[in-house]
Amino acid sequence: MTRKILLLTQGHTNPHTAKTASSVIRYRPEEAVALLDNTQAGKTSGDLLGVGDKPVVSTFDEAPGCDTLLIGIAPPGGSIPKEWRPIVLEAMARGMNVVSGLHDFFTDDAEFSAAAAKHGVELTDVRKNNVRCIALRQGLDESTLRIHTVGHDCSIGKMTAALEIEAGLRRRGHDSQFIATGQTGIMVSGAGLPIDCVTADFISGATESLILENQKHKILVVEGQGSLVHPAYSGVTLGLLHGCSPHGLIFCYEYGRTEVAGYPGRKLPPVPEFIKICESMANQMQPSQTIGVVINARTASDDELERERDAMQSATGLPVVDVFRNGVEELVDAVEKLQQSRS
Amino acid sequence: MTRKILLLTQGHTNPHTAKTASSVIRYRPEEAVALLDNTQAGKTSGDLLGVGDKPVVSTFDEAPGCDTLLIGIAPPGGSIPKEWRPIVLEAMARGMNVVSGLHDFFTDDAEFSAAAAKHGVELTDVRKNNVRCIALRQGLDESTLRIHTVGHDCSIGKMTAALEIEAGLRRRGHDSQFIATGQTGIMVSGAGLPIDCVTADFISGATESLILENQKHKILVVEGQGSLVHPAYSGVTLGLLHGCSPHGLIFCYEYGRTEVAGYPGRKLPPVPEFIKICESMANQMQPSQTIGVVINARTASDDELERERDAMQSATGLPVVDVFRNGVEELVDAVEKLQQSRS
Repeated sequence: MTRKILLLTQGHTNPHTAKTASSVIRYRPEEAVALLDNTQAGKTSGDLLGVGDKPVVSTFDEAPGCDTLLIGIAPPGGSIPKEWRPIVLEAMARGMNVVSGLHDFFTDDAEFSAAAAKHGVELTDVRKNNVRCIALRQGLDESTLRIHTVGHDCSIGKMTAALEIEAGLRRRGHDSQFIATGQTGIMVSGAGLPIDCVTADFISGATESLILENQKHKILVVEGQGSLVHPAYSGVTLGLLHGCSPHGLIFCYEYGRTEVAGYPGRKLPPVPEFIKICESMANQMQPSQTIGVVINARTASDDELERERDAMQSATGLPVVDVFRNGVEELVDAVEKLQQSRS
Repeated sequence: MTRKILLLTQGHTNPHTAKTASSVIRYRPEEAVALLDNTQAGKTSGDLLGVGDKPVVSTFDEAPGCDTLLIGIAPPGGSIPKEWRPIVLEAMARGMNVVSGLHDFFTDDAEFSAAAAKHGVELTDVRKNNVRCIALRQGLDESTLRIHTVGHDCSIGKMTAALEIEAGLRRRGHDSQFIATGQTGIMVSGAGLPIDCVTADFISGATESLILENQKHKILVVEGQGSLVHPAYSGVTLGLLHGCSPHGLIFCYEYGRTEVAGYPGRKLPPVPEFIKICESMANQMQPSQTIGVVINARTASDDELERERDAMQSATGLPVVDVFRNGVEELVDAVEKLQQSRS
């Protein structure tokens, strides 16, 4: 059943914080109705997030017929902004279901749970899980190709790259599958596990379980998380990398980003060096090679993008694209080439 | 208050599985009374685990006066063996408190909780936590030296090395502190956090919180977990490494171990190469160097140990010791040298 989703981004309708909202608009356009943010009412998602043309409204009444409030942000730490509580309660009082990907589970919140029961609506915590799998490295089917998007920081397009490449593979008739490992990927694909929210001992095991469940497909494209040099999340990144044991890596980075977002002064290694770090850690588990590079060039002009592509192609010897402005065909070629070399 | 602890190791009184029991006997000898294992009754902890001389008994009646049953094993996955349930229930019926470091929380188990309430005893889950800290890299005091034990596999002595080195530092009058990051370390030191059991996004943040809390001391020795090439636990290892941002690393390995325990055929990198992997990942966060090597030589003769020390010293240029058979003085020297070089 298609939902009618109102995306809550109150005070945070910007591309970095509202990445969940952006992705739902991009990949579930038929379900996304509007954004709720009274500081930006009258603008559109295109104006503020650079995706789609959904209206930003300031009240529930301006988006009638919505049956679902979806929390459209992914803040570090995953807590709900205090001023959002009355908005969530109002949505439930109006009979709307609520979907959240925060670490603060709504279903564990006494006030929210009571309101949901009173109004007969559903609360869904996308990140809530009871995963308890140890990675065993048993049953991996080497005839299924495993591709994994890694990158130099959070929120730079690893999920988007994976979704776009997988769609490109399907357009060429491949039996491929996108594997979601974070709350937004799960919201847009309807499956997956929130790898950043499992118990630490089970990061690789949870990832391995996703691989084992999806080996009926011939190519898996596994969404990456964080980065191997991230001060807070590198553990998630490495456990995920080892759990999915990729044959091929796609390295993603944002044009112009030189420091870890939110950690001023913390320099990122240059891309060619960073690719070596990823390959070196991936190869501890499984022979693995980087087959392509994705630039998130949203801040670059067309000229800047082309210069960056040329420079990065020379530095790495790999195909380099912005998935929206250059398309994914060169990356799909690279996946096919890797598949052929292994068969 | 000193407890009187009966260690439950039923059917598993061997050095690998019963590592929690071994450590409690070694580091809490005044509290450990006996081991409960009716398959080994009449033997001692010295016979079976190579530590102390606590008797192994087959019934509760043979260890009168015990007020605490402590689960003495750390199985992969952290589940309780089924046949142990009646033993745990009997302990509670006899008025004993129960301490567990398993992932299966006893306090979430309806039957165990009901029995604890009925008999007025305490259930303690050492691994249960509600940690929600993001690593921020703020407030780190660079005048406190951070030492971290890393290693090539699980259960090879990273906690023991950290405890012994920290004790050696204190013997020389240093203001040092052992930082426990796993259930056994917490049980023997009475503080710390179970880093392998926090939510994945908070591995580094939980570790950082332990550092921030203990910076009143001048030297911290942080217990390591898992290994950077472990198929299941590498994420915990990297998040911990980055969260504690060590100035100095102590590399620990077991003599003769060439494969990851429990993963037949999965080769471990040679020690000198493995040290480079650890240093390379540590240096992504903080200038860091390896200052010593610990051999767990429990399966080696004295001759074999000496040959191994010579070979490893030549290969690495570092002091190499078995902490029990060679003592820790060379490692304490290395810590002092690092501290002097930074002041």
